[in-house]
Amino acid sequence: MENRTEISSLGEFGLIDHLTKNIEITHASTIVGVGDDGAVIDHFGKQTVITTDMLVEGVHFDLMYTPLKHLGYKSVIVNLSDIYAMNAMPTQITLNIAFSNRFSVEALDEFYEGVYHACRNYGVDLVGGDTSTSGKGFIISVTALGEVSPDKFVKRSTAQKGDLICVSGDLGGAFLGLTLLEREKQIFLDNPQIQPDLENEDYIVGRILKPEARKDIIEFFASSGIFPTSMMDISDGLSSEILHISNQSSLGCRLYEEKLPIHDASRAAAFKFGLDPTLCALSGGEDYELIFTLKQDDYDKVRLNEEISVIGYMDILEEGRKIITKGGNTHDITAQGWNAFK
Amino acid sequence: MENRTEISSLGEFGLIDHLTKNIEITHASTIVGVGDDGAVIDHFGKQTVITTDMLVEGVHFDLMYTPLKHLGYKSVIVNLSDIYAMNAMPTQITLNIAFSNRFSVEALDEFYEGVYHACRNYGVDLVGGDTSTSGKGFIISVTALGEVSPDKFVKRSTAQKGDLICVSGDLGGAFLGLTLLEREKQIFLDNPQIQPDLENEDYIVGRILKPEARKDIIEFFASSGIFPTSMMDISDGLSSEILHISNQSSLGCRLYEEKLPIHDASRAAAFKFGLDPTLCALSGGEDYELIFTLKQDDYDKVRLNEEISVIGYMDILEEGRKIITKGGNTHDITAQGWNAFK
Repeated sequence: MENRTEISSLGEFGLIDHLTKNIEITHASTIVGVGDDGAVIDHFGKQTVITTDMLVEGVHFDLMYTPLKHLGYKSVIVNLSDIYAMNAMPTQITLNIAFSNRFSVEALDEFYEGVYHACRNYGVDLVGGDTSTSGKGFIISVTALGEVSPDKFVKRSTAQKGDLICVSGDLGGAFLGLTLLEREKQIFLDNPQIQPDLENEDYIVGRILKPEARKDIIEFFASSGIFPTSMMDISDGLSSEILHISNQSSLGCRLYEEKLPIHDASRAAAFKFGLDPTLCALSGGEDYELIFTLKQDDYDKVRLNEEISVIGYMDILEEGRKIITKGGNTHDITAQGWNAFK
Repeated sequence: MENRTEISSLGEFGLIDHLTKNIEITHASTIVGVGDDGAVIDHFGKQTVITTDMLVEGVHFDLMYTPLKHLGYKSVIVNLSDIYAMNAMPTQITLNIAFSNRFSVEALDEFYEGVYHACRNYGVDLVGGDTSTSGKGFIISVTALGEVSPDKFVKRSTAQKGDLICVSGDLGGAFLGLTLLEREKQIFLDNPQIQPDLENEDYIVGRILKPEARKDIIEFFASSGIFPTSMMDISDGLSSEILHISNQSSLGCRLYEEKLPIHDASRAAAFKFGLDPTLCALSGGEDYELIFTLKQDDYDKVRLNEEISVIGYMDILEEGRKIITKGGNTHDITAQGWNAFK
């Protein structure tokens, strides 16, 4: 970094002014934005959806290979993903950060550039927040608000027997990207002369460092007259999420290994690392895709959408939660979440 | 602590279940609470106010003298105070925490006991959140939502020339409580045989460790037909806050030292520590009282309320921001916030 401006040279209020001076309010629902005790929001007859997430350095991200701009972007995305998973459209976010004195104003600017970029891409307003020092590490806490027409939100607990289980996009890529970055980090730490070899790995690296939220899927539902019977986002891994839907809906489920959407780049990376691509798809986290269930009658509405894969169906509770392998074997789905890999 | 249950014995989902199993939803506006990607809220034709704050161990609190139950309570209160400062009533909160492995389940239970106690006292629902590990320290991020009738919120920027400047309660106590606790901590560190001497200091210690938010003042406004022309809460100190109101309203102001409300216990503590009680009232932070401006016509409505003090008036910008001392001298008000004491 060429310039380093100490945060102490601005002071707390100066820093807040600096970081928020270029905010543009784009939502009619944002009545009052930053600069007061609270923001005021009017969802004009719609219901408000709220979600919040915390990202902690050393737990959720490693600044050794995570550009601050991407981190800012991702901090917003992981929350917007939860809003979409309620079948709602995000409208506002608040952002709290705490950082140690190793951060400069320029470093925070990079982080906020990513935050504002995500806000622009997804049409949300940053309406409040708090900046603080921390003894150690960088901590990010984002809260997102969204709006949904009254009672059109979609929960996890409302899947029905016989419903189709669908996922958006493809799975396992983020975990494989993280595996690659962790491996290259270790090689670099062992021998700082060796430069990271990320060639041809753009896809999986992008999946972990700069995920997107599936706004397009929610818009597709609205334009196609689709109302999912249940939905959530895939942050901890497919296995973990389908068990949440099954448990909360008091149902069993059947998944088919051959139906799991896995990108060619993810498959190639898995083979390179000696990992099972199916296991990466089931248990890798952070893909930020949507998993949802549909009435069977809606099948014709989704079958031509290449961004949606039907991967199984919901069954009665007594049938258990099973995956049918390509070889025809049946296994219990176990709750290997994201943490299982750490 | 008698029992120590490791958090790892519950797992992430087990911990969330444990911490949230006793949640009671009390607000009709809470349509969906914890347990899904987001909570759903319907403010039924009212506007939504949102505010958020982060508390970091070692920066905002010291666990050496802060009971976890009080910390949980205060984490909620500091956010509710911001909602009241918008002339709104709080309805929901979300809570993110990150903690190192030195915390046990029992320690988190104590913290949450304080959180739930504040929720009950102020009638708000806990509707979401995130728990995470941290490399070091305890970090708390709370977001509060409130509701206000359309366009009845009160900003900082709308004070008018001639308006009365009022504050609720009394000032400086929290800073003096902190000063006492820091002094006793130092004595203890120097000689662990000496037990802390907090006798007769309940009031100032309570002000820093277990503040309350001024719900009663907002209810008094509603029942008395008072609509403040501007308002904010006093978290960084009176000087800092009146300068915010003056700057954002493009006005000057006059405060009178003799009108500043200072509790007898605070005055006694200040003299004991060799501090000027007026300076503590002006520059001490964390009192979580309200500062607001009123039209002069409203004077009769507040003059009999012992919880409200009129301390000055707003003036034109050219007159500057001044305080008139008891001796009749005039001084500029300077922005010594909370940080000035650190």
